[in-house]
Amino acid sequence: MTDQAENTTGLADFIFGTLASTEDRVEAIIGAGRGLGAPTLAWRDGALHISLSAGPDAPIEEALLHYTLDGNDPQPGVPGTIVRAFQDVPPRWDTLLWGYVRRFELTIPTGQLPPHAMFRYRAAGRTRDGSIVQAADGRRFSHLLGTYPAPGWLRGAVIYHIFVDRFATTGGAPFAEPANLAGFYGGTLRGVIERLGYLSELGVTVLWLSPIYPSPSHHGYDATDFRKIEPRLGTEADLRELVNAAHARGMRVLLDFVPNHVSNEHPFFKDATTNPESPYREHFTFRKWPDDYASFFDVKTLPQINNENSTARHYVIDSAVYWLSMFGVDGFRLDYAYGPSPDFWADYFKAVKAINPESFHIGEIVETPELLRGFAGRMDGALDFHFLQAVRKAFAYDTMTIAQFNDWLGRHQAYFKDANFALPTFLDNHDMNRYLWAARGDSRRLKLAALVQFTLPAVPIIYYGTESGLSQERDIRQGALGILEESRQPMNWSAIDADLLAFYKRLIALRGSLAEALAGMRITLIADAAHYAFGYAVEGKLVALTLINRSPEQVTLTLPTAPGKWRDRFSDREYADGTPLAVTLDAFTGTILTLL
Amino acid sequence: MTDQAENTTGLADFIFGTLASTEDRVEAIIGAGRGLGAPTLAWRDGALHISLSAGPDAPIEEALLHYTLDGNDPQPGVPGTIVRAFQDVPPRWDTLLWGYVRRFELTIPTGQLPPHAMFRYRAAGRTRDGSIVQAADGRRFSHLLGTYPAPGWLRGAVIYHIFVDRFATTGGAPFAEPANLAGFYGGTLRGVIERLGYLSELGVTVLWLSPIYPSPSHHGYDATDFRKIEPRLGTEADLRELVNAAHARGMRVLLDFVPNHVSNEHPFFKDATTNPESPYREHFTFRKWPDDYASFFDVKTLPQINNENSTARHYVIDSAVYWLSMFGVDGFRLDYAYGPSPDFWADYFKAVKAINPESFHIGEIVETPELLRGFAGRMDGALDFHFLQAVRKAFAYDTMTIAQFNDWLGRHQAYFKDANFALPTFLDNHDMNRYLWAARGDSRRLKLAALVQFTLPAVPIIYYGTESGLSQERDIRQGALGILEESRQPMNWSAIDADLLAFYKRLIALRGSLAEALAGMRITLIADAAHYAFGYAVEGKLVALTLINRSPEQVTLTLPTAPGKWRDRFSDREYADGTPLAVTLDAFTGTILTLL
Repeated sequence: MTDQAENTTGLADFIFGTLASTEDRVEAIIGAGRGLGAPTLAWRDGALHISLSAGPDAPIEEALLHYTLDGNDPQPGVPGTIVRAFQDVPPRWDTLLWGYVRRFELTIPTGQLPPHAMFRYRAAGRTRDGSIVQAADGRRFSHLLGTYPAPGWLRGAVIYHIFVDRFATTGGAPFAEPANLAGFYGGTLRGVIERLGYLSELGVTVLWLSPIYPSPSHHGYDATDFRKIEPRLGTEADLRELVNAAHARGMRVLLDFVPNHVSNEHPFFKDATTNPESPYREHFTFRKWPDDYASFFDVKTLPQINNENSTARHYVIDSAVYWLSMFGVDGFRLDYAYGPSPDFWADYFKAVKAINPESFHIGEIVETPELLRGFAGRMDGALDFHFLQAVRKAFAYDTMTIAQFNDWLGRHQAYFKDANFALPTFLDNHDMNRYLWAARGDSRRLKLAALVQFTLPAVPIIYYGTESGLSQERDIRQGALGILEESRQPMNWSAIDADLLAFYKRLIALRGSLAEALAGMRITLIADAAHYAFGYAVEGKLVALTLINRSPEQVTLTLPTAPGKWRDRFSDREYADGTPLAVTLDAFTGTILTLL
Repeated sequence: MTDQAENTTGLADFIFGTLASTEDRVEAIIGAGRGLGAPTLAWRDGALHISLSAGPDAPIEEALLHYTLDGNDPQPGVPGTIVRAFQDVPPRWDTLLWGYVRRFELTIPTGQLPPHAMFRYRAAGRTRDGSIVQAADGRRFSHLLGTYPAPGWLRGAVIYHIFVDRFATTGGAPFAEPANLAGFYGGTLRGVIERLGYLSELGVTVLWLSPIYPSPSHHGYDATDFRKIEPRLGTEADLRELVNAAHARGMRVLLDFVPNHVSNEHPFFKDATTNPESPYREHFTFRKWPDDYASFFDVKTLPQINNENSTARHYVIDSAVYWLSMFGVDGFRLDYAYGPSPDFWADYFKAVKAINPESFHIGEIVETPELLRGFAGRMDGALDFHFLQAVRKAFAYDTMTIAQFNDWLGRHQAYFKDANFALPTFLDNHDMNRYLWAARGDSRRLKLAALVQFTLPAVPIIYYGTESGLSQERDIRQGALGILEESRQPMNWSAIDADLLAFYKRLIALRGSLAEALAGMRITLIADAAHYAFGYAVEGKLVALTLINRSPEQVTLTLPTAPGKWRDRFSDREYADGTPLAVTLDAFTGTILTLL
């Protein structure tokens, strides 16, 4: 059973690739439940709450935490290392593991700890014979103490996701016509600069650029240098100009950063594999030198960086710092952030926040909410693939009713309520079918999803072209290359869906005006099989409403609002003061109303 | 993957039949996670703590509990029904269900509730449109308020499990020789009476008789009358004599009671299937009358009683009361207690405790500890199939080290610590391979397991013949009938293993003398791959030790005990006052030491 089965259109959303089937999930759960697991850390109520589980196969007598606050490596007997015993709490039964999971907890009040200190820790168990069993195979964890509030500029932000090779050519030249979608289409940084007017008019406030580093590929996720710019895309001067021009327009720029792996053509890797004395040998993980090495999902052309090696780690983190400090970029989208260890991310976060505490760092973590939440204190947030899955089910595939979607949304928000963790939303990206394609080209369904996306508090992301009706030619699984590239068609500058674009402009502008409302309390008024009405109350007064009719029939939604005059922010129609408020919506349409 | 795979001997322990494989467990977990689940109830700290979960597919706005304290059916709007809203607590993520499970809790202080009142309840959810979703498909739950302490006579008790047709014939006549093990061997109640001397000398204090009701089978789990005695086995006078004689010897008698199903030859069922006007129609569950009906594991000869029908329920419970009140039996072993509902069991418990609060009622519940624990307040305890599984792994199959066993035991005891729920232990029963067979006939391994069993606080059960070296001829899966019956060979009166029997006698006597120690604190001194030393401290002083050498080599265990003279209670050897205490054990032997 996979999520594909839920997709009645025949299209597949392989969003959670490693967790797509029940079998995969069972394997993941059983794997995580074995032995002495990874300690989890939560910061709440002025204390660090650290938990540890011992699987049925891990007989220990006592659980210990070793930690340091001076950045040093916590090890028994090493000066500065503090040792604390965990408290034993009642075991829980696990039917899947068919055994009892023993649980340990430890609370460390943070009142007397230095702010923004690096809390490094390892957990271990002591067995009856006195030997020590390392938790999580001895892995070290780190957590940056204190919380960094989300950057102020994030409030009201709308992110625009640019796949550089496919967005805009220099001087508006026609895109190249390579043999297939894995070729080069000719998009450049200058092309982006030249389209800043378009982006500014659209109303987006943040640009996220796909990787701009030298790379043999069209996507750039396989860099051959972390501190240079791919000549096809432009120059350092271009990037500087782009950042400055964006800033001048009040826009921010995020780069895409790939700390997990490089191209096998990266000179460090080439040296590591050909030079037996290479200083870069430890930058990678050779199971058997030189041919057998750890790589991204076992793709040999994408060797994995050994970020547990301190030289490699410093090099990678310093590369991120380089772009922040030398080019003034405003943060990063962090590719495959589940790859490098939590320990790496704490170091990363400390380094980048030291350069610019207002910079923003979001991970691509295609994992469970439980795992996502554990990244708090290590990055500012993560791309919300769970929202993506739900919003597509509800508005593209109809495999979720509106009632189910609303219920899911409430639980999702409750789960992350106190996590201090941003979850930017998106309807599609470069690794899946475009939303419009998934919705069988029905832009009404795209508008419905966007209406919901833009009237929720989370920062919305637009994948280039989604606002202009760009779709694709084939399903990603049936495409010329069989994977992913189908959703990376060049921007449809000459075939923009003017109606859709106008809708997006209005929507973005509206979101800007709704900032105060979105900080209020979300209230659901209607959520049935196909109709949705939710709004926001500020100081107890409902001030904004999102209305959705996901049905093929016109409907009149009757809303029990308090007295007041309401305005439809798309049609500008005004509703006379009178309750209940009755709003008629055509099939597959929605709108936003605000209190006058 | 099933537990069978863990069994290196090639023999199979299909103990948890419905939960034996990962696939079964996944199905059970996913099934239980769907919708609005069964509310769970725990009694602790002077309050009832009721929890409810709403699966990812159950969008509700609010959760409600309806309850009564007057025994009446809790229904919205019915007088006496109290309605309380649950508190919403943070959702949890469930990877297997791939969604958030919403959780609700409700605490009801019991201070002002009448003692031993019947707390009946139903949980429900209110959806956005105001409709009500019943939790657990509308099933009603009941819980008997207050706790019944375990009967006083249970302290120091040893239960002996008699399969009546196979234990003893009248006058010591030879057993019959039916064509196969499904035939009648001729054991009788009088045979049991005649062997009371044997049982008394053995030292057991409680007899559990397999079903004695009229039945077409050798096992009697398919009764044709709940209130008569199978003539093959004896008469009412025989039972009365047996109970009286046992009581005169200070022994108690438990019957086996089967509230879940009857034989398809039961007159009620025959009437229900042949008489369209039958008053017994509602005693059963006809999906389509008369051929399609609910039955025990879909075995058509074992129609399931519809215990949700109040007439049927009264009849069943009154039948149990009948044996308690008319024959003075001391309680029941409750066959397939997972079958009838929790609501049934609360009624049952109230009725039987009203007749005799010192009666004892243990369920056969081959389910998870989580489910087992939920039976507290509905029966006194349950047969400990989890101990059975662990003890066989550790001492018959060697698929668990002693360290793992000890760790498992600690978790198991911690899990049930405050549950007020007895978990009698056993090494085998009539539904599985005998322990001695599983141990390839090695009675040393049986002794090791028995030593552990009898020096733990839980009440031990001996399956007839286990103490005398009775084994079987074939694996249950390879037997003449292919199932179960192989372990029901007639008692080996003429081939008793005298050494084993003497060991058991000594062990039982010792257990009697250890009652105070067993109420102390259990302390593990050694638990490695194959050696075990645990003991009990009373008022901080170690007073008893169990020593085990589950290895093929002689070993000397060196024990860091406090000063004092110790005596080996099997060899009577005394150890001079001196620490550490050093005890030499031959291969596959163990012993008990007590402080002089």
